[in-house]
Amino acid sequence: MTLEKKMMMGPKSVIGEAGYVMEDVPHLGDYLLDLPTYSNPLQDNPAYSAVKQYFVNDDDAVVQKVVVHKNDPKGMHFRRAGSRQKVFFESDEVHACIVTCGGLCPGLNTVIREVVCGLYDMYGVRKVLGIVGGYKGFYSSNTINLTPKSVNDIHKKGGTILGTSRGGHDTSKIVNSIEDRGINQVYIIGGDGTQRGAALIYEEIQKRGLKVAVAGIPKTIDNDIAVIDKSFGFDTAVEEAQRAINAAHVEAESVENGIGLVKLMGRYSGFIAMYATLASRDVDCCLIPESSFHLEGKGQLLEFIEKRLKENGHMVIVVAEGAGQELIAESMRSISHKDASGNKLLLDIGLWLSHKIKAHFNKTKVSINLKYIDPTYMIRAVPSNASDNVYCTLLAHSAVHGAMAGYTGFTTGPVNGRHAYIPFHVCAVPAFLLRALLFVNLFGKQRITEMPNKVVITDRIWARLLSSTNQPSFLSSTDVEAKRDEDEPPTQLLDDGKDRCSTPPPNATP
Amino acid sequence: MTLEKKMMMGPKSVIGEAGYVMEDVPHLGDYLLDLPTYSNPLQDNPAYSAVKQYFVNDDDAVVQKVVVHKNDPKGMHFRRAGSRQKVFFESDEVHACIVTCGGLCPGLNTVIREVVCGLYDMYGVRKVLGIVGGYKGFYSSNTINLTPKSVNDIHKKGGTILGTSRGGHDTSKIVNSIEDRGINQVYIIGGDGTQRGAALIYEEIQKRGLKVAVAGIPKTIDNDIAVIDKSFGFDTAVEEAQRAINAAHVEAESVENGIGLVKLMGRYSGFIAMYATLASRDVDCCLIPESSFHLEGKGQLLEFIEKRLKENGHMVIVVAEGAGQELIAESMRSISHKDASGNKLLLDIGLWLSHKIKAHFNKTKVSINLKYIDPTYMIRAVPSNASDNVYCTLLAHSAVHGAMAGYTGFTTGPVNGRHAYIPFHVCAVPAFLLRALLFVNLFGKQRITEMPNKVVITDRIWARLLSSTNQPSFLSSTDVEAKRDEDEPPTQLLDDGKDRCSTPPPNATP
Amino acid sequence: MTLEKKMMMGPKSVIGEAGYVMEDVPHLGDYLLDLPTYSNPLQDNPAYSAVKQYFVNDDDAVVQKVVVHKNDPKGMHFRRAGSRQKVFFESDEVHACIVTCGGLCPGLNTVIREVVCGLYDMYGVRKVLGIVGGYKGFYSSNTINLTPKSVNDIHKKGGTILGTSRGGHDTSKIVNSIEDRGINQVYIIGGDGTQRGAALIYEEIQKRGLKVAVAGIPKTIDNDIAVIDKSFGFDTAVEEAQRAINAAHVEAESVENGIGLVKLMGRYSGFIAMYATLASRDVDCCLIPESSFHLEGKGQLLEFIEKRLKENGHMVIVVAEGAGQELIAESMRSISHKDASGNKLLLDIGLWLSHKIKAHFNKTKVSINLKYIDPTYMIRAVPSNASDNVYCTLLAHSAVHGAMAGYTGFTTGPVNGRHAYIPFHVCAVPAFLLRALLFVNLFGKQRITEMPNKVVITDRIWARLLSSTNQPSFLSSTDVEAKRDEDEPPTQLLDDGKDRCSTPPPNATP
Amino acid sequence: MTLEKKMMMGPKSVIGEAGYVMEDVPHLGDYLLDLPTYSNPLQDNPAYSAVKQYFVNDDDAVVQKVVVHKNDPKGMHFRRAGSRQKVFFESDEVHACIVTCGGLCPGLNTVIREVVCGLYDMYGVRKVLGIVGGYKGFYSSNTINLTPKSVNDIHKKGGTILGTSRGGHDTSKIVNSIEDRGINQVYIIGGDGTQRGAALIYEEIQKRGLKVAVAGIPKTIDNDIAVIDKSFGFDTAVEEAQRAINAAHVEAESVENGIGLVKLMGRYSGFIAMYATLASRDVDCCLIPESSFHLEGKGQLLEFIEKRLKENGHMVIVVAEGAGQELIAESMRSISHKDASGNKLLLDIGLWLSHKIKAHFNKTKVSINLKYIDPTYMIRAVPSNASDNVYCTLLAHSAVHGAMAGYTGFTTGPVNGRHAYIPFHVCAVPAFLLRALLFVNLFGKQRITEMPNKVVITDRIWARLLSSTNQPSFLSSTDVEAKRDEDEPPTQLLDDGKDRCSTPPPNATP
Repeated sequence: MTLEKKMMMGPKSVIGEAGYVMEDVPHLGDYLLDLPTYSNPLQDNPAYSAVKQYFVNDDDAVVQKVVVHKNDPKGMHFRRAGSRQKVFFESDEVHACIVTCGGLCPGLNTVIREVVCGLYDMYGVRKVLGIVGGYKGFYSSNTINLTPKSVNDIHKKGGTILGTSRGGHDTSKIVNSIEDRGINQVYIIGGDGTQRGAALIYEEIQKRGLKVAVAGIPKTIDNDIAVIDKSFGFDTAVEEAQRAINAAHVEAESVENGIGLVKLMGRYSGFIAMYATLASRDVDCCLIPESSFHLEGKGQLLEFIEKRLKENGHMVIVVAEGAGQELIAESMRSISHKDASGNKLLLDIGLWLSHKIKAHFNKTKVSINLKYIDPTYMIRAVPSNASDNVYCTLLAHSAVHGAMAGYTGFTTGPVNGRHAYIPFHVCAVPAFLLRALLFVNLFGKQRITEMPNKVVITDRIWARLLSSTNQPSFLSSTDVEAKRDEDEPPTQLLDDGKDRCSTPPPNATP
Repeated sequence: MTLEKKMMMGPKSVIGEAGYVMEDVPHLGDYLLDLPTYSNPLQDNPAYSAVKQYFVNDDDAVVQKVVVHKNDPKGMHFRRAGSRQKVFFESDEVHACIVTCGGLCPGLNTVIREVVCGLYDMYGVRKVLGIVGGYKGFYSSNTINLTPKSVNDIHKKGGTILGTSRGGHDTSKIVNSIEDRGINQVYIIGGDGTQRGAALIYEEIQKRGLKVAVAGIPKTIDNDIAVIDKSFGFDTAVEEAQRAINAAHVEAESVENGIGLVKLMGRYSGFIAMYATLASRDVDCCLIPESSFHLEGKGQLLEFIEKRLKENGHMVIVVAEGAGQELIAESMRSISHKDASGNKLLLDIGLWLSHKIKAHFNKTKVSINLKYIDPTYMIRAVPSNASDNVYCTLLAHSAVHGAMAGYTGFTTGPVNGRHAYIPFHVCAVPAFLLRALLFVNLFGKQRITEMPNKVVITDRIWARLLSSTNQPSFLSSTDVEAKRDEDEPPTQLLDDGKDRCSTPPPNATP
Repeated sequence: MTLEKKMMMGPKSVIGEAGYVMEDVPHLGDYLLDLPTYSNPLQDNPAYSAVKQYFVNDDDAVVQKVVVHKNDPKGMHFRRAGSRQKVFFESDEVHACIVTCGGLCPGLNTVIREVVCGLYDMYGVRKVLGIVGGYKGFYSSNTINLTPKSVNDIHKKGGTILGTSRGGHDTSKIVNSIEDRGINQVYIIGGDGTQRGAALIYEEIQKRGLKVAVAGIPKTIDNDIAVIDKSFGFDTAVEEAQRAINAAHVEAESVENGIGLVKLMGRYSGFIAMYATLASRDVDCCLIPESSFHLEGKGQLLEFIEKRLKENGHMVIVVAEGAGQELIAESMRSISHKDASGNKLLLDIGLWLSHKIKAHFNKTKVSINLKYIDPTYMIRAVPSNASDNVYCTLLAHSAVHGAMAGYTGFTTGPVNGRHAYIPFHVCAVPAFLLRALLFVNLFGKQRITEMPNKVVITDRIWARLLSSTNQPSFLSSTDVEAKRDEDEPPTQLLDDGKDRCSTPPPNATP
Repeated sequence: MTLEKKMMMGPKSVIGEAGYVMEDVPHLGDYLLDLPTYSNPLQDNPAYSAVKQYFVNDDDAVVQKVVVHKNDPKGMHFRRAGSRQKVFFESDEVHACIVTCGGLCPGLNTVIREVVCGLYDMYGVRKVLGIVGGYKGFYSSNTINLTPKSVNDIHKKGGTILGTSRGGHDTSKIVNSIEDRGINQVYIIGGDGTQRGAALIYEEIQKRGLKVAVAGIPKTIDNDIAVIDKSFGFDTAVEEAQRAINAAHVEAESVENGIGLVKLMGRYSGFIAMYATLASRDVDCCLIPESSFHLEGKGQLLEFIEKRLKENGHMVIVVAEGAGQELIAESMRSISHKDASGNKLLLDIGLWLSHKIKAHFNKTKVSINLKYIDPTYMIRAVPSNASDNVYCTLLAHSAVHGAMAGYTGFTTGPVNGRHAYIPFHVCAVPAFLLRALLFVNLFGKQRITEMPNKVVITDRIWARLLSSTNQPSFLSSTDVEAKRDEDEPPTQLLDDGKDRCSTPPPNATP
């Protein structure tokens, strides 16, 4: 059975009254018989002495759909995160490891810190290993022993003390290394590619029948992960993006026909661009991957720029890095390059757009003054803000509680403000599907939950942005029709519980 | 019938299948017959042309309880916020006014800006009046005409351009002023006292049979409002509080027996103190109103300070302004002063604590070095951060949509990440109850939703804090018993949907 | 007589005892006979009532050379800035204008504000005109009336409220416009090209015999102006550059063979790069225009990068935009492009270097991870910090005092911490000389004061940087010899008073 | 001979032509005969290979007086700081120690870092000891070995890694400890009290005939040290103070009759208050120790507050901590408390003023809204900004060069932008004089250089502030006369070279 096939297979499901369904996560006990359990050491922790009911009930579930109608079925649920009365590891038996993969994101160090401190302080674990430099680090002898002391101040720094890399995933070598080192809890922090890798590791571990829990902590500065409310580092990134937009605005206002162009992160989704635009109010035009546009033609970008310059004398454009890729592709006829992780190496929309805008106004003999700002690395590398610090703490603790309780093959994250355990296949969409989804709606009306998180441009939050920037939608009526079909939620049961329409997920949390 | 009686009366309720209940908000149509309706002008707005289904269905509801069990009843719901197909005001008929009351809070200007821009851009309204200086401003002739141009940059400044004040509420004079000026939409931004005032205004308007919608936008930097996920400005406040904690930490570390003491906001709830502590990791002890403590005695504060100084040589204490009020009261025997709004003028716990700690170590002949920091005004007065800016926008637009759709007597806010309309009585608890609730649990098992939002110290988030600071709980076992009873959710139906246990509301949003 | 000739002509000079020379500035009285004088209105200003000796003595001079030997001659001096007992304009006679030219620089708005407030508050002037969009604005009808109220908050914003542009200088049209509008004080804020333009305007005005004072306020974020201690905005720029260096450091540290490359401003001088490097301590290599380097070859850049990566696993490179231009020129064989102001459009050293480094390691089959950051616009566009705000105030007031006192054809700035008036020719070096000076030392041993401010790499501050980064000097011994000759101060009399050796000018101030 | 007597004794003086005088610093060779010298290891350092003339000439001097008249005598000079051709210590002979004393100040850690790195990198020294907790630390066994690695990142943190304390100075115990440990270079970072202590240590060492160099690095966030241009941390402090002033302004503007009151550092001098006021522009009234005021009476503070509130509806007051002490003293009749260092424990002017203002308006039945902000610890504890980081580096290196060259009993700092060595007695004024100087001018016309640095309120910079805030001077004409006499520079020879009149020292630097 191929990965893609597995990915689309259903998870463990629990059915209840009135249309209640829970998509459950795997457990070590699913394939290991007669595992002993132990009482949770938290109940002897004085900090928890006043807590009424510390342990999550085994049948606590988090509902995915929050906007409901009177007589709706109850719909999809996820297993609630948190500590359990019984744990499946003894404190001194645990040998955990942590690995960070992919690009930088504010909060990585806080997550590392809190997995370590969570294991030490709550469960009395004493062996936590840092794998250095991403998945590749599993085959290297260069590891770091992590203790509460060694991680004490790391949350005040950007980046990841463990180092990171793209790609380098070799399932069987990784699982060999896990076996050889005697590791029995694996914490994997990374984006969708990384989570797909984690799924493969979990499957191999299950095949070999090892008592090793695999917990994923989803990391994507772009916020493009489905189901969970927002990804860590997103708030910090939107905050930091304000600096670049402010600079672009000042530059644009200070000259005649000034254009400030800011490229922000977002390969497949425009959340950062959209939220940074909504927060700033100084942006005249926001371009995202989800909403295609053309340069030439009536009502299209160049015409809009001309119009806005004529009205205001200057303008600010924010563009997500993944926007307009079809246009670049068209004009380049070559999109074959790939970077190490297999994501296509997107050609720089910012530089491309600068060039096209300058060329256009050169042709029309209008003198403009375009300033292009790419703050990507300056955003990625800052330490997380207070809100993300708290969020990362809760994420890390949820992962630790889950692994101690014997769950495996799960990612963790907030769903409607409550932390839950989510099967890998729901969050981590295979890359080939992802690419396909960008242009065509392959799935018809099935499994909308498996789609990556995208800005739904046929819904209200995007309309609110258009209204605030007063930019045209750039979409033809046929585009709109296509989009409407694509975004149509297939059935009531699978309705998108996140209701991205009126209420943007990114701010919602633990 | 007294205010207190009314406050406790049930709202309009809608009953559905499987235990579904919706606490609905009033509507102008409830007391005005044959009101004409108009089609929503948004449907002609080009920004919304691509939107599939812009209008919220009339029976959309937001569920209060997100953590559920398989066969639970569906529980409490609120009316979903958003624009409706039919509106009850014509654009050129609307004459709106905005007033800000109470203390400063980051985001006030953003809310003002977005009520104005929302009314202008989405509904074509042209008459928006700013009432100057809080409720008192209604009887003054000094008002400000608000236009998108005049409010364009105000979100970049702290404070409120309208000015604010405490108290000054005279229901009938205010309603006279509303009638005299021909105002028909009233947007009231303020804390719980202010929302109680808004409820009185709504009742008087209803009594007079006026076609005037009253919309409340809850403001409390302390996050102490029930039901909604978090209040605006909270994120910004927690972020800004980090500076003070950092300074206290540096001061404490640089001297022998250094103690850094930081007072943060929070009269009745310790959310800011708790989140600032969790985000910082440099705090050794966090004191909040919800968890009482003693200075002297085994396991109490002074003993803990001695212990921590002996171990580490320095420590950082964060104290919420409302913590330890019983102790001060006891030692002062005079708590009769009141400030203008009727809140008791709490004596400064920070100065009091500094004094007591110094006196203690003076007595024990241990030389300490205590530095007390009160960053309150420096926190309140900053502009809102990006996350709060987006949040304020959504809040303001929800209020505008609600008023245009004829709803009245409501506040608006996110419930589990979805914006909803909430009847006044749920959020705004009478002051006498509030005070009562601080010490005694008057209500037994009824109407828990009417309680202000408090840190539930018998739940996990507080235990997590205790675990991270490694401070004692300071509670005796009888205290704990009492607290457990108090916090006990009375019935399944009225279960606290916010599940504060594992998942802190403050980060959750629109 | 050509401009270049004039530029090299001596100024008015005053000779005193023991080798004392003062390079004086022109005065309206030099070419206008029988000008009436008035008593300075400041002496009736209550704010100055306590001042003992408010007016600068006519023979106060600021010494250029501060490091001296026992029996040295006294050397060069400049006229001290400040208010004079007699002024040459009546308050209601003054019609001032302000223009800003060239690129953005933190502090422009503060200078504008303080010229306006200085004229209003100190001298009772009521007519101040803002010329919009640089020199070109003189021929446009679009001007702004400037009042203390209209400029009250502008210092909190980046950019310039007057707008700016490059080039557009037409001496006779500008002077026509000055005559037509009845302007009699011209404040010109801009870099060396702008100051050369100001010199031409002054000469034309003198030729026409107009009573118009021309005051230059030197603006260059690069700090490349001779004689004065530092230029405004420099401090802010170095501060803001730290963000980019921090980000580069975090990115570099988080991956294997990570290289963080940051391009900073500095076409002809490396002050920003050097100070940002010294302030940060995270930089491994700093490249500036004044110190040439090669890519290939023993002890050159690529070898150093290889070595540092081998030792540390990562490195941070800071490069000034004007560094390595010869290398680019060589590899491009085309440096003919010019931008509107006539500066050659330097090809981007940052992108070029990124490309070359990647290509090199690609060839040697070493996998590296290079992140290139160009924070230029994000630095230029921030508001000035507190230190620059105070500095800009003093600059603006010095200019106002000078013009009121009838001086003209001068720039103003601090020399060894005291504000002085400096003849245009000393600060503003003709462009062709500038370019020449980059590669060859045309002047032999004459007129070192006319050279632009450069980092003197044969002196101690640069050695200190090399020592702190532990980078090689990249210079061959013949390079060093050449540099030593070039930098040799010609005579004791003309010794560089700024003593850049041990004591960097940029921090020195008013 | 008492300390006070010694303090006033003349230093070593060198006389030259035309009125040239140099106040020289002591040298180990003054009391130790036949000391061997060594060639400076810097000349073999590759970083310095390109340097033309690295070593400072023995007769280089820095002139104190920069504003001169044509035929003035040359005046006072100081020995120029920098490396010398000959050093008096071999690298492996050096055993240095560093101690930090007094209150926190941004930049302490940078100075520590750079003394360590300077000794290691430039001179190959390998033994540097950190004394913990101020002077007291000399008698404790708890010291820290300092290496470039251990201090690598400390400049990014506020405070001092060595810890600090007030008082605890016991000369003979300290010198015993120095002898016992075999220390031969002592670096002492601290304020005027600390520098007086350093002078005593130097004298005892000289008396015992030890080969131990004592170097002082002046630290005072208040900038109240005479002769040097500004003290480190001052820029950072003024910058950080802007936050508090902004907050006060927002609070004041948002209410009726709002008064924002900010207390800033400055026991004996008002530099921080004055510069923060000049940088901000939002301040209506600035009160400093140098300019006395009264509450009641015509033209005094309360009347001015009433007037400004009537005009503007709000106001911002900045008060230096040492302002108005006579008033408090008068109203308290008890100023006998002293803190550990012997400075009188000034009663809090901020709280006192708040109380008095409230009481006054209470009496006059005007409702005001006063918000008091004390940001002291939040300012002191921040890390130094980029400008201070560079400055601290130069200070530390100057101290290292001086000690290596055998100079002792000196402090180091920039004079007119050039670093110089200054005899202790010039910077460190005995405390009793200091106090005396506050009220009475004891000295008549002698030794003005020995006075602490104060804002000279009879000069232009203060007038400029009064003009910008438009506040009255609060001084009676007799006050003014007295001040004028007090500030009168006694003779031309001893004229205050810093010319504080028009050009504020604080920004001037190395």
